[in-house]
Order: sequence, then C-alpha cells, then structure tokens
Amino acid sequence: MIDIKHYLKQQQQQVHQALDEFMLSPSGDFADHISCMRYSLFVGGKRVRPILCLATGTCISPDITIEDRLLPVACALECIHTYSLIHDDLPAMDNDDLRRGHPTNHKKFGEAEAILAGDGLLTLAFDLLSEGQYAHGLPDSARLKIIQTIARAAGSLGMVGGQALDMEGEGKDLSFEQLQTIHRSKTGALITASVLSGAIGAGAAEEQLQAFRVFGDNIGLAFQIVDDLLDVTSTTEELGKTAGSDAVHRKATYPAFFGIEKTRELAQQAVERSLGALSSFSDRADPLRALARYIVDRTK
Amino acid sequence: MIDIKHYLKQQQQQVHQALDEFMLSPSGDFADHISCMRYSLFVGGKRVRPILCLATGTCISPDITIEDRLLPVACALECIHTYSLIHDDLPAMDNDDLRRGHPTNHKKFGEAEAILAGDGLLTLAFDLLSEGQYAHGLPDSARLKIIQTIARAAGSLGMVGGQALDMEGEGKDLSFEQLQTIHRSKTGALITASVLSGAIGAGAAEEQLQAFRVFGDNIGLAFQIVDDLLDVTSTTEELGKTAGSDAVHRKATYPAFFGIEKTRELAQQAVERSLGALSSFSDRADPLRALARYIVDRTK
Repeated sequence: MIDIKHYLKQQQQQVHQALDEFMLSPSGDFADHISCMRYSLFVGGKRVRPILCLATGTCISPDITIEDRLLPVACALECIHTYSLIHDDLPAMDNDDLRRGHPTNHKKFGEAEAILAGDGLLTLAFDLLSEGQYAHGLPDSARLKIIQTIARAAGSLGMVGGQALDMEGEGKDLSFEQLQTIHRSKTGALITASVLSGAIGAGAAEEQLQAFRVFGDNIGLAFQIVDDLLDVTSTTEELGKTAGSDAVHRKATYPAFFGIEKTRELAQQAVERSLGALSSFSDRADPLRALARYIVDRTK
Repeated sequence: MIDIKHYLKQQQQQVHQALDEFMLSPSGDFADHISCMRYSLFVGGKRVRPILCLATGTCISPDITIEDRLLPVACALECIHTYSLIHDDLPAMDNDDLRRGHPTNHKKFGEAEAILAGDGLLTLAFDLLSEGQYAHGLPDSARLKIIQTIARAAGSLGMVGGQALDMEGEGKDLSFEQLQTIHRSKTGALITASVLSGAIGAGAAEEQLQAFRVFGDNIGLAFQIVDDLLDVTSTTEELGKTAGSDAVHRKATYPAFFGIEKTRELAQQAVERSLGALSSFSDRADPLRALARYIVDRTK
C-alpha cells in the first residue's frame, strides 16, 4: 500500500512546478490578463486530473521519463479544469463568490477578465498539447490522439454540454437518467480523458485502454457522487466553496434522489467497480487504486 | 484577374457545406446547446479566415484534393472566429445586441448559453483539427504544427490577450503603439494563422511561410483598419452590427488617430505591402491577391 497523502503531496508539487514552467509569465503587454489566469491556476486545487494522467502513465510504462513526457498533457488537463471552474462560477452561471477558499476569479478581476481568463486557459491547453518543445518524445500520432480525446471530453458532447444541461435543468424535476447524463458529461468525461491520455501517451494497448475507460468512468462517477454529498454534509469553510449551493439552485443530486446513506453506498460501489477494472494490472497500478479509494474517503 | 465576388460566393458555399457536415447535429441530450452554437455559426459571416486558409493551400499545392484536405482546418478557424464574436458581444464585454444583422447569441439564448456556446465552439475547433476521420491525408506533423499555430494565435498572447487589452484600454488615452498591439493580437494573429495553416497543410517551405507571414500580417492590419473605418462611415444597417460603437466605448481607432482620409491611405499601403510579399508567386496566388484587394475595397 502506498501512503496516499505523501504521494498526493509529492505529485501536487511536481504538477505545480510544471504549471509554473509552462504557464506564461505575468510580464509584457498581456501582464494583467496573464496574472488573472495565474490567480485561478495557483489559488489551490487538488490536481486530481493531472495526477490521474501521470499515475496511469507510470502504470503502463516502465520508462522512468514517462512522467516528464506526460507533464505537458497533465498541465493541459489542469488548465481545462481551471477554465471550467472560472466560467461555471460566473454570475450568469452558478454565480459563486468563493472557490478553493478564495474569491472567485470574476469577484477578484471582474466578469470580462474572468471570461477571457477561461478562454485563455482553454486555448493554452491545446497550445501545450501541440507544442513541439515540450513533447519530450511522445510520438506525433499519440499526441494527436490525446488532443482528440481531451477535446472530445471537454467539448459540447462532454464537459461543456454537461454544464449546459446542468444550467437548463436548474429548478426542474430531472429524472435519474438525466442526472446521470449530466454527471457523466460534466465531470466524468474529463476524468476519464485524464486517465486515457496518460495511457495513450505511455503506449497502452487497446484492451488496456478499455480497462482504463471503465476505471475512469467509475471514479468519475464516484467523484461526482462525493461532490454532491459534500455539498450537503460539509460547511463552506471545509469545502472552500459555498456549501449547500445545489439546494439553493434546486439542482438534482444523488442525495436528493437517494438520501445520504444510500448515496455513500453508491459511491463505494462505483469505487469498487473502478478497482475491478484494474484487477489484471500489477502493483504498478497501486497509485491508481489508492487514488480511487481516496476519492470516496473524502466523505468520511 | 479572378472575379472576386463569384470566387467568394463559391468558397462561402463550400465552407458552409463543410461546417454543416463537421458541426454536431442539434439532436439528443445536448440539442439546445448545439442549436445555440449553430445559430451563430450559420447566421451569416463572410468566412474570410477559412477562405484565406483554402486559397493559401491552393497557392502552394497543385494537388486537386488540397481544399478537401484543408476544409477541417478552415472550419476550425471559423469556429474560433465565431466563438470570439459570441464572447466579445457579451454584456460584460462590448454588450452588443446585433451581429451580422441578427440578435447576438446572448440576446437570443441568454448569457449562460452564449458563454457555453463560445466554449463549445472553441473546443470543437481542436476536436476538428485532431480528428483522424477528417484528416484526409494531412501528415501528423503538419497537423500538430497547424494546431500549435492556431492555438498560439487564438490564445493569451494573441486574440484572447488582444481582447483583454481592448477591454482594459476602453476610455483610456492609448498610444498608437498600444493600438497597434491590440490590433495585431486581437485580429491580426488569427488572420495570419489562417494563411499559415493553409500553407503548412499544403507543405510550404520555410521561405514561403515567411512570405505568407508578411502577407497575413499586412492583410490583418488592413482588415482591422477597414473595420475601424466602417464603424465610423457606415450605418448599423450596412454593418449588420451597431455602428459607431467604438466612439461609444471610447476605443482607440485609426480614424481617431489619423482622420478618415489618412486612414484610407494606411489601409491601402498595408494591402500593397501584402501584395509585395506575394511577388515571387505565380498566378496561383491570384485568389489571395484578389482577397487582399477586396478587404480594402469594402470601404468604397
């Protein structure tokens, strides 16, 4: 068993350093805009998506440089995640004042700057993914497949579409199937893509990709169930964002459908399915296993 | 000499058909969101960027399939341009009600949907650029170089950064150098990238890319000067967007610095520099030459 807290801290530091290297410097003509992007990128964050990407890479490849080669991909995933939080927090969307324990981007810099910071981070992700200088030897075909996987997951049939459904669904009586579609697209798709992009970059075979897809889908589901749960059971201080906001926005959630106890069980079941998908992997998959358990342990 | 009106109409039709093919269908779970994107993509537009991309490709490559192979790239450029218009029109930005003679996206669908439509179109661009199915034989290395060129031009040191500078500069006394930086980044960068991506896809040599860079930079400049001019000299009906909005927003413009006559001359000079950059090309560059002249002729 690995020490997940130590592992996370180490990986978070590695991702932080790489983000700082790849991110533009707040100088020159665009200094204010770049500072605005850097604020949200460095104000905190568990770096779950980049760490999943790196952990999947090391699960597949014994090459000690695999993490270095995947770092631009890992950082691109974090840029996309951060942009989505900035846009989701906007007054026209969830209108949140607090994120990761600090003022949201538009609260600090204004709406126009926040919209543009999000646009800039999304575009920077694809800049990083296609940048020759940072490729560190990922084959061109793998890089294109990674770009495709991430763009598909982050786009209108994935994360962006899921956020649109989430907005449309506010205050409406959604079916459980509709809730699942929102979760899968809004949160699950990018988490699965984080796992898959690490696997593709490390040269995984098709059957391995299939196992990682099941793994990713199930930890994505567990992650979203746990987020729903934390919104009900935590304080704003614990969360670093406004607690109870799902109820305020009359959003469909797992606890609203199933109650707290049953929701906890469903999260646990999803984590177990994710572990099952890794059954044929060696102890090189232990960081992924620990990450899966960590997701559901956040509720305890 | 080619008949530019006929050429434009023909190319616009080709781009329209390709956009309709590559764009998602407004059906299934995400139908409302997709309809919102399609609205802005098909509400009009001169398709200048995709046409520049295609015309540069045919200038370099005698292969009759070059336009087919470049169409996903051309459409991606139009997706990025359209997203930038949707976000620029938002209340927090330029707060425009009218675009291409129709209500702006947020006026028709609301702010949240408009932000997400922009996000979706930007992401779809990179989906199209990396999609194997549409590659039609562009080499992987060229596709990555195109993605890099477009991401760099559309991002925080290009179009997004330029819009941020434009917003920050409203109501301030900008120097002419600052105005040039805004123009170059906000409008010029993506126009140059449109030309370069066609050239890269068609296998242009480094010295040809250098000539196209000069060509693109100068038509981009001419384009923006002419836009400034039209904002002063046209009616809202002629423009299809609110005329005189630069003065309302107290934006720095060429006519504000130089007056109308001198501004016309500067546009003409930029077009002539762009034509000079093409001097070593054969009559295969005639569509590009005609496009350059067309840009400045819009003012007459």
